[in-house]
Amino acid sequence: MKSDLDRLMLDAALDALLVVGGSIHNPAMYYFTGGIHLLRGFLIKKRGEAPVLFHPSMEREEAARSGLAVRDLSDFAWNGVLHRAGGERLAQLLAALDVRGRVAVFGRIDVGPLLACLDALREHRPEIELATEFEAQEVLARARATKSEEEVERIRRTGRATVEVVGNVADFLTSHRARHGVLVNQHDEVLTIGEVKRRVNLWLAMKGLDNPEGCIFSVGRDAAIPHSTGIDSAPVETGKTIIFDIFPCEARGGYFFDFTRTWVLGEASDEILAAHRDVLEAYQVARSSIRQGVVCGEVQLAVCQSFEARGHPTVRTDAKTTSGYVHTLGHGVGLDVQEQPFTRPEDKTTAFAGGMVFTIEPGLYYPERGLGVRLEDTVWLRPDGILETLADFPMDLTLRLPGA
Amino acid sequence: MKSDLDRLMLDAALDALLVVGGSIHNPAMYYFTGGIHLLRGFLIKKRGEAPVLFHPSMEREEAARSGLAVRDLSDFAWNGVLHRAGGERLAQLLAALDVRGRVAVFGRIDVGPLLACLDALREHRPEIELATEFEAQEVLARARATKSEEEVERIRRTGRATVEVVGNVADFLTSHRARHGVLVNQHDEVLTIGEVKRRVNLWLAMKGLDNPEGCIFSVGRDAAIPHSTGIDSAPVETGKTIIFDIFPCEARGGYFFDFTRTWVLGEASDEILAAHRDVLEAYQVARSSIRQGVVCGEVQLAVCQSFEARGHPTVRTDAKTTSGYVHTLGHGVGLDVQEQPFTRPEDKTTAFAGGMVFTIEPGLYYPERGLGVRLEDTVWLRPDGILETLADFPMDLTLRLPGA
Repeated sequence: MKSDLDRLMLDAALDALLVVGGSIHNPAMYYFTGGIHLLRGFLIKKRGEAPVLFHPSMEREEAARSGLAVRDLSDFAWNGVLHRAGGERLAQLLAALDVRGRVAVFGRIDVGPLLACLDALREHRPEIELATEFEAQEVLARARATKSEEEVERIRRTGRATVEVVGNVADFLTSHRARHGVLVNQHDEVLTIGEVKRRVNLWLAMKGLDNPEGCIFSVGRDAAIPHSTGIDSAPVETGKTIIFDIFPCEARGGYFFDFTRTWVLGEASDEILAAHRDVLEAYQVARSSIRQGVVCGEVQLAVCQSFEARGHPTVRTDAKTTSGYVHTLGHGVGLDVQEQPFTRPEDKTTAFAGGMVFTIEPGLYYPERGLGVRLEDTVWLRPDGILETLADFPMDLTLRLPGA
Repeated sequence: MKSDLDRLMLDAALDALLVVGGSIHNPAMYYFTGGIHLLRGFLIKKRGEAPVLFHPSMEREEAARSGLAVRDLSDFAWNGVLHRAGGERLAQLLAALDVRGRVAVFGRIDVGPLLACLDALREHRPEIELATEFEAQEVLARARATKSEEEVERIRRTGRATVEVVGNVADFLTSHRARHGVLVNQHDEVLTIGEVKRRVNLWLAMKGLDNPEGCIFSVGRDAAIPHSTGIDSAPVETGKTIIFDIFPCEARGGYFFDFTRTWVLGEASDEILAAHRDVLEAYQVARSSIRQGVVCGEVQLAVCQSFEARGHPTVRTDAKTTSGYVHTLGHGVGLDVQEQPFTRPEDKTTAFAGGMVFTIEPGLYYPERGLGVRLEDTVWLRPDGILETLADFPMDLTLRLPGA
């Protein structure tokens, strides 16, 4: 949590954090400023002190809305544009707050101008050391990994709107009927994946959500490739697995939610039913393994064992497998759709802790059989130890079509 | 244009470009990959050679859709995660293509892990020099500043959808009536700015557009602060200037459009009418000054002179003024909503050239009088010298209310 920052900075021997860029779709800045409309800026947080936001003069009103201490960049004869000359100006900002020692840099911005700027900063303020090692960089990620109740409430709100849209999509699909293995509407027009995604965007917008990365709606063989998003012009086929993975955020880059269901329109084959059952079983294994203090990677191990016991290859038995269980169990969700904690098996230290919000998303993929199944919920490990699903939706596999 | 890259790289003595990150809302990568759904990757373009895209194994199908030459990161025992260890891996990618000499780095990603990665790269491949100076960084921006016909067509399509939404908003506003200086609906409920913006997002989504930075819909005194976006809970007031600035992009971070109109609901005061007339005059001055070969900053000068001749302060007479004409005339529009060319008066070299797509957006702002006016079109300077407005919409100031 944000209140952990000073302690985490001390652990990493950091004297200050420097956050660069605007607040929009820039998680590190948004974390401090909230959802204001700041196109450019700098935030400096010294250890033990409140952060200070430096803003272009034109954006003074937006900056003030953040509630942070603010300084106008025009007092430094500067509008905040980076590049080499920016390095001198940036040195002045740091000097204005008397920053010395080890500084870690954050922000999602165009990297090129910043590189030039930081090279110049090193020249102008040799008493400042840019802390680029992993531990320094992880300070903000570690703070963000545990959420305040207010943050959880925002993720929950995004989640509730998300599952309502998922329900809209299920209703929309089942308002069609099957013909020659694809869905058609009452005029016998084939329903395409592109049309489904267009509706998803519309329904998300109606709920005030952004969908910056689009969603995954992939059918059959495409569903068997975890990151394939589905081809817009392709028809929605019946009898095959559909992976619908949706991960919108609050407008202008606020808190995300991440959610997946696998559906079959009409009848599912025994093979698909078995895969779905095995994924559901792995999902339950994961849920029952997650407790405060349990190392994240151990849950990944338990899930691999569950799949292996049912005869599936996993990344544990073959790191390069593209069949079976081919990814890790999940990831944190917050201002990034994927953030700390990660359930990487090689990470032997990161443990589940109260306040974490993360996904549980086991899956099975068989490209050669045109089959993919993934089930994903976003959950909150509450400080009291209870694992709360932030937005509920049935795990049912088959969607019944009219007349079937 | 992309075909200028090799020449621009030679001018800047660059041997290769390294683009880092996914393709979504990452203009430098999108420029090469197009709108594929790549979450992580690297692209290396050596001078005189076609670019090569390195992708995580899970995203192999999306990567292939780019039509680029591709390499799987798993061949380098790597999934593309940065930080220090990434530096060694990145060195291997560069070695695989036998890259030597001066390399400029591009991409909009979290800067911290990249800094560590590049420090390690410098250690592992001392024969590579990271070119961070302004000229090297500008290579991509300069190529992107002139658009191919295909790029223009995408901006035009975004523009046409945008002005349709602007028309929807005008119709929506005038479907209300005035009561006590604010708009109310048929149930006497006050229309808020937040509700207008919600509709904008909805109508944009229906047209398949993203609105990553939101829009500006600011009234009265807020309109007089150029970057104030409007307060969601505030009512839509009559008789005051409303600045409506809308800048959506294609889904997942494609080409943008940028457009502004200023409206008054009901009667406009003489003061507002005069300001609108003066902005329109400046707009015409700008249009008639823009020709191939004219330095961009000179057009800004002409616009300042037009405003000054009508008694308005400008940034030319007082660089820190917050009244009158307080910004520059415009900017390029493409994969960034603001990109090259900029009409900065201090830039004595950048000239308008055939293929450029940019905004013309003069404005007048008087915070103490609660008045702001801005008019903005996105135009294309065609190779044949004609200045084409990419999406037309009337410049009318007043929106008539029913019964008025």
